[in-house]
Amino acid sequence: MTERRLSGIGVTPLSGVGSVVWYAPDAELDEPPAPEAVDADAEIDRFEGARDEARAEIRAERERTAERVGEAEAEVFDAHVQFLDDPQITEGVEDEIEGGLPAEHAVSRTFDRFVEQFEGMEGRMAERADDLRDVRDRLVRVLVGGDRVDLADLPAGSVVLAERLTPSDTAQLDPERVAGFVTATGGRTSHAAIFARSLALPAVVGVGEDLRDVADGAEVVVDGTEGTLVVDPDAETREAAAGGEEVEIREESVETADGTPIEVAANVGTRADLAPAAERGADGIGLFRTEFLFLDRESPPDEDEQYEAYHEALEAFPDGRVVVRTLDIGGDKPIEYLDLPDEENPFLGERGIRRSLGPDADLFETQLRALLRAAGDDAGGQLSVMLPLVSTVEEVREAREILESVAADLEDEGVAYAVPEFGVMIETPAAAFLAPDLVEHVEFFSIGTNDLAQYVMAAERGNSRVSDLGDFRQPAVLRAIRATVDATEGTDVWVGMCGEMAGDPDLTRLLVGLGLDELSMSAVTVPQVKRAVTETTVPEARDLAERALAASTKAEVEAVLTESTQ
Amino acid sequence: MTERRLSGIGVTPLSGVGSVVWYAPDAELDEPPAPEAVDADAEIDRFEGARDEARAEIRAERERTAERVGEAEAEVFDAHVQFLDDPQITEGVEDEIEGGLPAEHAVSRTFDRFVEQFEGMEGRMAERADDLRDVRDRLVRVLVGGDRVDLADLPAGSVVLAERLTPSDTAQLDPERVAGFVTATGGRTSHAAIFARSLALPAVVGVGEDLRDVADGAEVVVDGTEGTLVVDPDAETREAAAGGEEVEIREESVETADGTPIEVAANVGTRADLAPAAERGADGIGLFRTEFLFLDRESPPDEDEQYEAYHEALEAFPDGRVVVRTLDIGGDKPIEYLDLPDEENPFLGERGIRRSLGPDADLFETQLRALLRAAGDDAGGQLSVMLPLVSTVEEVREAREILESVAADLEDEGVAYAVPEFGVMIETPAAAFLAPDLVEHVEFFSIGTNDLAQYVMAAERGNSRVSDLGDFRQPAVLRAIRATVDATEGTDVWVGMCGEMAGDPDLTRLLVGLGLDELSMSAVTVPQVKRAVTETTVPEARDLAERALAASTKAEVEAVLTESTQ
Repeated sequence: MTERRLSGIGVTPLSGVGSVVWYAPDAELDEPPAPEAVDADAEIDRFEGARDEARAEIRAERERTAERVGEAEAEVFDAHVQFLDDPQITEGVEDEIEGGLPAEHAVSRTFDRFVEQFEGMEGRMAERADDLRDVRDRLVRVLVGGDRVDLADLPAGSVVLAERLTPSDTAQLDPERVAGFVTATGGRTSHAAIFARSLALPAVVGVGEDLRDVADGAEVVVDGTEGTLVVDPDAETREAAAGGEEVEIREESVETADGTPIEVAANVGTRADLAPAAERGADGIGLFRTEFLFLDRESPPDEDEQYEAYHEALEAFPDGRVVVRTLDIGGDKPIEYLDLPDEENPFLGERGIRRSLGPDADLFETQLRALLRAAGDDAGGQLSVMLPLVSTVEEVREAREILESVAADLEDEGVAYAVPEFGVMIETPAAAFLAPDLVEHVEFFSIGTNDLAQYVMAAERGNSRVSDLGDFRQPAVLRAIRATVDATEGTDVWVGMCGEMAGDPDLTRLLVGLGLDELSMSAVTVPQVKRAVTETTVPEARDLAERALAASTKAEVEAVLTESTQ
Repeated sequence: MTERRLSGIGVTPLSGVGSVVWYAPDAELDEPPAPEAVDADAEIDRFEGARDEARAEIRAERERTAERVGEAEAEVFDAHVQFLDDPQITEGVEDEIEGGLPAEHAVSRTFDRFVEQFEGMEGRMAERADDLRDVRDRLVRVLVGGDRVDLADLPAGSVVLAERLTPSDTAQLDPERVAGFVTATGGRTSHAAIFARSLALPAVVGVGEDLRDVADGAEVVVDGTEGTLVVDPDAETREAAAGGEEVEIREESVETADGTPIEVAANVGTRADLAPAAERGADGIGLFRTEFLFLDRESPPDEDEQYEAYHEALEAFPDGRVVVRTLDIGGDKPIEYLDLPDEENPFLGERGIRRSLGPDADLFETQLRALLRAAGDDAGGQLSVMLPLVSTVEEVREAREILESVAADLEDEGVAYAVPEFGVMIETPAAAFLAPDLVEHVEFFSIGTNDLAQYVMAAERGNSRVSDLGDFRQPAVLRAIRATVDATEGTDVWVGMCGEMAGDPDLTRLLVGLGLDELSMSAVTVPQVKRAVTETTVPEARDLAERALAASTKAEVEAVLTESTQ
């Protein structure tokens, strides 16, 4: 049998070999029996029982997701419990049962009605339709009885194939048993993709309809680097894939083949990310997102709780650098205690440093106190503080003044502290244009390529209609990066990058050539990027960067990159 | 009596003198009578009658607004009619009447309940709360009887003072009788401000609470240039204001004091803008927005209808240039026949050229056919075609190919046409970064400062929490403008500006210094800008631009500008 290849979008640069397990949760319901054959009281009892079971399942999955992936990702389950307990929905189901439907049909019909309503609504409301479907499928499954594949208990070496994977589905995947997954739908920013990156699972999404032709039990290779699913792979493909993950993990810091040191660090979004970051050889943390400390709770964390979290991160990297980004939150996040605005375009709204210098000034001061105390510990590595979404020089000045006044307070109180290294994210076009001025106020820049690309291109990456435009391979984005690095020439300011771009080993040479000193990424690709650093020289890298900067189109940039990896 | 000055935001550079007429539509309702005193049937009849009267009023105001201001602005009234006819609201009011309330109290209570619901919702839904309040106030006024000021029938020389002016209010203002208006709330982009600019009315908004202390009947000067309301003005202030508008209208084109020609053109958003543009001496049209042709109708305009509109614009400027922007529309606009997406961040979504090369390709081709035919007329001025929201070179290439294929079709069909001048808006940071590449594909650039500032700063101008950030006086925005102009040096590509920045005569010298060849603005400030052009020299202007570009903060930019006007 000759091998067959299906193309999609690779979401982790990892490969896996295994046998297909098809996962199809949406079993069709049989025709309902005649209404007079339905015992309404018994069906309402069944419905109640199913709700209890579903609630218990959701809570368990919520906990598992929070632990494995992160608080922010776990939040989606809170919405599910809300729908489960919604009186309008519950009444609707009960009415349908009274009208003569068995519980599973009543659930299906009622939820479908609400799904339709939400689909007709605006923006975020429309997204709730997916959550409703997720809850509906769960209830129906519980009611009909489990003939669906139990994702938590697959044979080792399973490759899961599915039309799509919901948050509930992905939360159940056991990375010890699953060799990878492939979905027909989804993009790089889908929940399933985020999950795969967090857990270092080989994964390909967005393969399309052809996926359905792959048989259950077929031998496959999931090639997350190429974004392909190879069906009935020949021996060579299989061996290459099996050996694919075996990139040597380097504990030591690395330099280019001609001796320029490049710091390779990990992005951390939750406590659970710390251990994998260290295990995969990160030199430190280039982006410690602090949002997880604030999400999904009734009130903000106090100074001591935050201090503990920062202290823990520093302990995990006793010889490294831990760059903590101050709270980066805005109107697209549901945090009850923050009174976040409801904005027409939340990505162009009050978020990041704008809130820290505005309505969240108290939180900012508390966070800085905790950070300065942690910076004063002997135990750990070096702490750096980084401001998100800077777009003016005044913001940096003002934040620095607050930091200094916090230091003075701690001094007066006799509390141990140190003044940390101070830097800003370069993620607005304004920050790139102002870089020659900003260098005078900071010790480092860190380029956030996801947001930078989004704003430079005026195209939201999460919006599938324009996500191709909002890509960091666009020449305009490369020029914004170059302008930023150029501004640091002849200064002591170092420049890192902590967007998704930094984690792609195929771009490492380009980034070295553009003049970056540090690259920070999801832990999974740290070994690949470290290897890529050692395999380039600065003159080669600069030559590549010059050619990429001369390109006028994304296609030309990609052609330059492809040529360089051949 | 010595004069007193209140500060706000000037929205037109015009001054007016007059007597205060306070406008307070929100009269308090008396306590309702005892329920048993209410004749429910009679009250329901009153409610029905009030709805009919309100509907007639709304239709008349809609028509007046469409004619005077524009179709897009008139659309808000369609939502009002919908609310008036909403069965849920109507039933709610009737229930309250059955419960023993008079019609006005029933309307007030029911609408308030819906207002509260909408206020709790997301994004655009929340804005509907304002529309509901507008409809509520109208119904209550009709029911209680007109003791409110009739804005359509004020004594000549009235200056209207109000807490806020709704779309319904502004639609009634008669520019022949009103000498200006001043509101306590509102910003530069509020409906009232847009209206003032369209009708060339002196206006100041956002004065705050102090406005309430100004007595009905007081003599005042509205100074839209300074953004002040002068109460009990002394003779000198009064004379200056009365003479203030008398900037000479120059029909001829102008040049700087040392002989560099600068084209001063008008922005046009509807047919009704054409005559004022010519009357105030515009050299041509620097931005002909074509959206009004597409809004508020069941199907798109056909080729002939569009041809007529473009032809009419060219006839209005037989010796000038008419720059027509192709359809610039996206997910924040309600156009039934276009299947516009519902996006989380519509300003970072599928809009402008992205739609013309995607889902609206048919419309784009029809529009180009109409444009090429109009360009072929002998009758009028020179037609230029401009693409909105360009962010890649491919978009420009692709659009040009379509234009060429449309030309070939017309040639084959034997239809008269000409190939128009071809250019792009520079309104994304990407376009500014790519300007050195874009010059090879176009004949002109036109910088759209409103959007450019918004994207460079990642701050929506219409969002009051961040509108100060999204300002074109930010140094990062000036640098993006300069990068764009620099790219045209040594080429034949001319650079214009058609954002709000172009219409501020205090910025004319700066813009000349930045190297702009053309400035296009709302007709009202054409005379002031023409005068400002003649009052500067290129070396002075360049010196000012250098100093502004060296500034690190908006405050420094403003200081440089203030210094230059003293």
